[in-house]
Amino acid sequence: MRELTLNISGGERPAYLRIADAMRAAIREGRARPGEAVPSTRAIAGRADCHRHTVMAALEELVAEGWLVARRGQAYRVSRELPERYFSPARDRLARPAARGAPWRFVREASEGPHAAAENFEYRFQSGLADLRMFPFAELRSHLSDVLRRRSPAALGYGDPAGHPRFIDALTVYLRRVRAVEPGGVVVTHGSQEAIFLIGQLLLAPGDRVAVERLGYRPAWDALATAGATLETVEIDEQGIDPESLERLCRRRRIRLLYVTPLHQYPTTATLPVARRMALYEVAARHGVPILEDDYDHEFHYRCEPLPPMAADDPAGIVLYVSTFSKVLYPSARLGFLAAPRVAADRLSKLRRILTRQSDSLLQEAVARWMEDGGVERHMRRMRRAYEQRRDAMALALEGHRAGGLELDWTVPDGGMALWLRIPGRSSAVARAAAAAGVYVQPEEAFQLSPRPGRHLRLGFANQSPSEIEAGLALLMAAAREAGRPKR
Amino acid sequence: MRELTLNISGGERPAYLRIADAMRAAIREGRARPGEAVPSTRAIAGRADCHRHTVMAALEELVAEGWLVARRGQAYRVSRELPERYFSPARDRLARPAARGAPWRFVREASEGPHAAAENFEYRFQSGLADLRMFPFAELRSHLSDVLRRRSPAALGYGDPAGHPRFIDALTVYLRRVRAVEPGGVVVTHGSQEAIFLIGQLLLAPGDRVAVERLGYRPAWDALATAGATLETVEIDEQGIDPESLERLCRRRRIRLLYVTPLHQYPTTATLPVARRMALYEVAARHGVPILEDDYDHEFHYRCEPLPPMAADDPAGIVLYVSTFSKVLYPSARLGFLAAPRVAADRLSKLRRILTRQSDSLLQEAVARWMEDGGVERHMRRMRRAYEQRRDAMALALEGHRAGGLELDWTVPDGGMALWLRIPGRSSAVARAAAAAGVYVQPEEAFQLSPRPGRHLRLGFANQSPSEIEAGLALLMAAAREAGRPKR
Repeated sequence: MRELTLNISGGERPAYLRIADAMRAAIREGRARPGEAVPSTRAIAGRADCHRHTVMAALEELVAEGWLVARRGQAYRVSRELPERYFSPARDRLARPAARGAPWRFVREASEGPHAAAENFEYRFQSGLADLRMFPFAELRSHLSDVLRRRSPAALGYGDPAGHPRFIDALTVYLRRVRAVEPGGVVVTHGSQEAIFLIGQLLLAPGDRVAVERLGYRPAWDALATAGATLETVEIDEQGIDPESLERLCRRRRIRLLYVTPLHQYPTTATLPVARRMALYEVAARHGVPILEDDYDHEFHYRCEPLPPMAADDPAGIVLYVSTFSKVLYPSARLGFLAAPRVAADRLSKLRRILTRQSDSLLQEAVARWMEDGGVERHMRRMRRAYEQRRDAMALALEGHRAGGLELDWTVPDGGMALWLRIPGRSSAVARAAAAAGVYVQPEEAFQLSPRPGRHLRLGFANQSPSEIEAGLALLMAAAREAGRPKR
Repeated sequence: MRELTLNISGGERPAYLRIADAMRAAIREGRARPGEAVPSTRAIAGRADCHRHTVMAALEELVAEGWLVARRGQAYRVSRELPERYFSPARDRLARPAARGAPWRFVREASEGPHAAAENFEYRFQSGLADLRMFPFAELRSHLSDVLRRRSPAALGYGDPAGHPRFIDALTVYLRRVRAVEPGGVVVTHGSQEAIFLIGQLLLAPGDRVAVERLGYRPAWDALATAGATLETVEIDEQGIDPESLERLCRRRRIRLLYVTPLHQYPTTATLPVARRMALYEVAARHGVPILEDDYDHEFHYRCEPLPPMAADDPAGIVLYVSTFSKVLYPSARLGFLAAPRVAADRLSKLRRILTRQSDSLLQEAVARWMEDGGVERHMRRMRRAYEQRRDAMALALEGHRAGGLELDWTVPDGGMALWLRIPGRSSAVARAAAAAGVYVQPEEAFQLSPRPGRHLRLGFANQSPSEIEAGLALLMAAAREAGRPKR
C-alpha cells in the first residue's frame, strides 16, 4: 500500500476523524485491499502534517469499527473479513442499476396540492389562509413561556396519542358550546389532513368506493385514495351536495364512506340547508355509509350563528367530524382534531400511534391555556370581524367590475374565507393570465377529479387587506379580459 | 303544536341559542312536524321566562337555517321541505344498526405499542426515553421567544412539506459533520415514525414482502404492514443482522424493502460490524432491495465515534435513512427526519403533503437557531456523559446481582439508551412480576413478530438516575427470583 494517498482536506471534523474518513474511503475504493498493511503511523503523520498520536487515534478508531486489525508489534492491516464482493471493481457494479431492475418502484403518489408556489405572487387569493400579520404573537409567546417556565417533563414527554388531556378538555368544552357537538371521543391530529388520512386508513380497503362531492378538496381526496379507495362523485348545485344523487350512487355501488363539506361547501362555499342535511343523513344511515364531515372553517361565519355540524345530530352514530385550528391560529401549528363515536375514536387513536405517534404536547398545553383564558376566542372574534369586512370589500369591488361591463356572477358567502366567482372566460386560462400578472388564484379545474373546462375561480379574501384585495382584483379582471379576448 | 315543551335549561350558550337548540330538538324528535305552526313568540317567551325579542332572534335564526318558514302576518311554521323519513318513528330506525349491516368495518389496526401505560410505574426502564428532568427548558423558551418576537408570518404559515429551509440547512450541516451523510434530499417528519410510515406508503404495495430483523421495533413494523406488506424475518445474532440470512430470503422471495437498525440493533443493542454492513449492502444492492436504515440514537455512543451509518456509503443509491431529535430534545417535539436519494426524497415530500402537510415551522426555526448557536450539541454532550454514567451504574449493579447468585448475562452496549439482559426465567413472566412490584420493563416477547418465550429484557438506563436504576433493579431482580421459583 505504498502509493496510498489520503485526501485529508479541511472541514469541520477533527483531524483524527478526517484521517479515519480518508482511510475508510481508500479501503472502500479498493486502494487498500483486505489483508494489506497500512503505512506506518509516522509516514501518515508526515503526509497529513499532524502529530503521530492523531494518526494513532484514527487507526484505533478504525480497529474498533472493524476496518483494520492490529497485532502486537506488527503493522495495522486492512481486515480480511471485509467481503471482497463489496470492493471495486465489484463495487462499480453495485453503483449500476441492480440486476433485477432499479430498486425504485413508487406505489403511491400524490398530486401537487394547492398553493404549492403561491408565495411567489404579489397578490394571493389563497383560500383557507389566515392573515398572519394580525396574529397575536405576544400572546402565544407568553403561553409557551408559561408552560416552559414550569419545567414539567410531562409537557415534553410521550403522552396519549389521542392528545394532551388538558387540550382535549378545552376542545371538548369548545365543541360543546360553539358547535353543539358532544363527542364520543376526540383525537388531536396534525391538521385535519392527518385526521382524514387516518380515517381513510381505518375504514377503506383497496378497491372500496368513497363518495365525494363533484367539486372538492383534492388533498383530502388524495388521502382517501391512498388507502386504496376509488372516488365516486356526487352531484352538487348552488345549495351544496344533492342527497338524491347520493341515493342513486348508493343503489348502484357499495359506498364505504361519504366525504362532505356541509357548512361551506368546498370550493363553492354553499351552505347545505337543513332539509338536505336530513335527507343526506337518512340516505347515508340507511345504506350504512359513515359520513366524514369536514368542518374546516366553522369559526368564520358572518350571518348569525353557523349551522351546527351534522355531527351535532347523529342518532345512528355514523358521523366522523374533522376540523382544525390551523385557520384560527396559524397553519403550521398543525392543530387539527377529529371527533367520532367512541368505537371509531379508540381505533383511530391506536392507529395514529403508528402514523405520527402524537402531537406536540408543549403546543397543546400552551393553546389549552390560551383557550381557557378566552384569548383564542377573542382572537377569533377579531379575525371574524376583519374577514367579514374583507368579504364585503371583495363583493363591492366585484360589483364595480361587473358595472364596468364584465360578466361576473357570485353569491356572497355566508361564511368562510373565500368567494366562488363565475367569470366569462375559461377559468384555467384566466388563472394562467393572472399568474403572469403576479396574481395567484385557483381555477375550478383545481377542484375536480378529472379536470373539465370550468367557469369559476375560488377567491380567498381572508389573507389580504381590503386595499390589497382591490388592487389584486383589478389585475385579475384585466387578466380575465385579456384571456377572454379572441386570439389573432 | 300546543303541547310543545321546550327544554331550555342552563349552560353557557346565550338564551336565544338555547331556545333555538330546544326548537331544533323538538322538530327532530317529531314533537313539531313539518307544516305545523310554532307557538306564538309571546307564549314561548312566557314559558322560557325571557324577553320576546330573544325568542324572535331564535326563530329568525331557525328561519335562516331552514327549519322554519315565516310568512308576513302569519305564525312561524316548521318547513315542509324537511324530509319526513328523517323523523320519528323513522328516526328511531336510523338509530338502529343500518339495514346493510353496521357501518363500521375496521380495515387496518395497530398493536398496542410500547410504553402504553409506563407512566403508572414507580421505576421505568423505558428505552429510548430521555431524562426530561435535565432538559434545558430556559434555552428552548428563549429560542421560541426570539422567533415569535420577530413577528414573522413566515414562521407560522404554510411552507415546504419537506421542512423549514433553515432547519433543513442546519440538519444537513449536522448530518454531514456528525454522520458523514451527504443527503440527496431531506424531509422533516413528525418523528421517525412518520418517516417510516411514509416510506412504506411510497414503496410498498399490498402483498409485497419486507425483510425485518428477527427482533425489532413493532411500531415501525406496524407502519410498514399498514401499507399492505407482509413481514419476513432475517436472523440476528450477537453482531446484529446476518447478511447470509438475508441472501437466503432474497433468493426465495422478491423482497421490496429491508428495515434494519445497524448502529444499535433494536432491541439487542449490537453494533453491526463493518464487514457485515458491506455484505448486507452488497446483498441488498444485488437484489434491488432499498434499505430503510433506522439510526435512532447515534447521538449516544460512548466508545469513541459511532460507526457512520450505511447511508454514508451508498454507491447504488438505495439507502433511506431515518433518524430523530426526539431522543436528544424531547419526544413530543416530533422532530424526525429522513435523508434519501433525491428521486425518492422528492416523492416522499409530495406524499407527505397528504399525510400531515408539514411540521410546525415555529419549532423548526427555534431548533434551527438553537443548533446554529451550538446549544443543541452542548445539551447532547451533557446528556451523553450522564447516560454513560447511567449505563455504567446499571452494569455495576448487575455485576452485584450476578455475584449474588443470579444467572445474568449481558454485553455492555457501546452506545444507545438501553442494555439487553439475559435472565434465568421466562422474560414475560419476569416482566409481569416486575410490574406487580412497580417496575416497568419490556420483555423479549415485545420485540417479536409472533411472540415465542424469550429470556431477555431490554432495560432502558437513560431516563432514571443512577440511584433510581439501582433501586429499580433491586426490585426487578427480586421479581426475577420470584418468577423463577417453582410454583407449589
